[in-house]
Amino acid sequence: MDIMLFLLFLAATFAAGATGALFPTGEWYKGLNKPSWVPPNWLFPVAWTSIYLLIAFAGARVAGLEGSAYAMAFWAIQIALNALWTPVFFGLRHLRASIPVMICLWCAVLGATITHWQLDTWAGLAFVPYLAWVTVAAALNLSMLKLNPDEKPLDLANM
Amino acid sequence: MDIMLFLLFLAATFAAGATGALFPTGEWYKGLNKPSWVPPNWLFPVAWTSIYLLIAFAGARVAGLEGSAYAMAFWAIQIALNALWTPVFFGLRHLRASIPVMICLWCAVLGATITHWQLDTWAGLAFVPYLAWVTVAAALNLSMLKLNPDEKPLDLANM
Repeated sequence: MDIMLFLLFLAATFAAGATGALFPTGEWYKGLNKPSWVPPNWLFPVAWTSIYLLIAFAGARVAGLEGSAYAMAFWAIQIALNALWTPVFFGLRHLRASIPVMICLWCAVLGATITHWQLDTWAGLAFVPYLAWVTVAAALNLSMLKLNPDEKPLDLANM
Repeated sequence: MDIMLFLLFLAATFAAGATGALFPTGEWYKGLNKPSWVPPNWLFPVAWTSIYLLIAFAGARVAGLEGSAYAMAFWAIQIALNALWTPVFFGLRHLRASIPVMICLWCAVLGATITHWQLDTWAGLAFVPYLAWVTVAAALNLSMLKLNPDEKPLDLANM
């Protein structure tokens, strides 16, 4: 594996992951109703850091292989949607609008898992924890929308 | 060019571009001091739509070529940073934090332009308007930071 390529894909995940530091969970998130099975707060950064390392590894393994065009397109889609979700949920506080973003992200990660797997088993496997975590995140997002029906998004246009 | 591949790269740009619709410019942006040379408001969506179409075209042309690994890594980095900038500027209203994001985006677009150009002249050319526009956007971002020294970012953690 090309280490420079790994660092470039890692840079892309860093851009997406920066949203986690820039958009704080804070009091608002604490105050939301959550399902009983909500993962503990400390698990989120641990899970995301591991996932980002794994998918940078997967991208770097696959990028140089013949026939990687679709895998690379899905890699790009998932990182753009990944960067989008946090600002919609924690920035806009838009529990409803974050659902379609999460569904698109889930589909993109599934597409990335399949297309990477077809080229390289290790790269495909590296996407599996991501797919599992996004499944949990989607269920959590949906559950929080249901449990907080009166929660209004931030009205940025009039602030 | 593979049309399916073009649509996948376009989907990635759509995710980044969605920030433009989700994070409104609104009254806050209107109230900011701007340099005399600020582009008119209507130009922004026109420029971004053209750029997104062009870079989806560039990605689709290059993805299938041998030796496209670095071009694809830069394509992924630029779209993640592209999705990040709008929420930092228009969501957090963080004029200062948006500067390093913009500088990283500029570098990523330069990297994408060069690596695409090395493989395919048309793909490289398709990135040139993006590089030009991001140069203008960076100058505008910097100028607005200087012209609005007392502007405070949104304190989401305590809202």
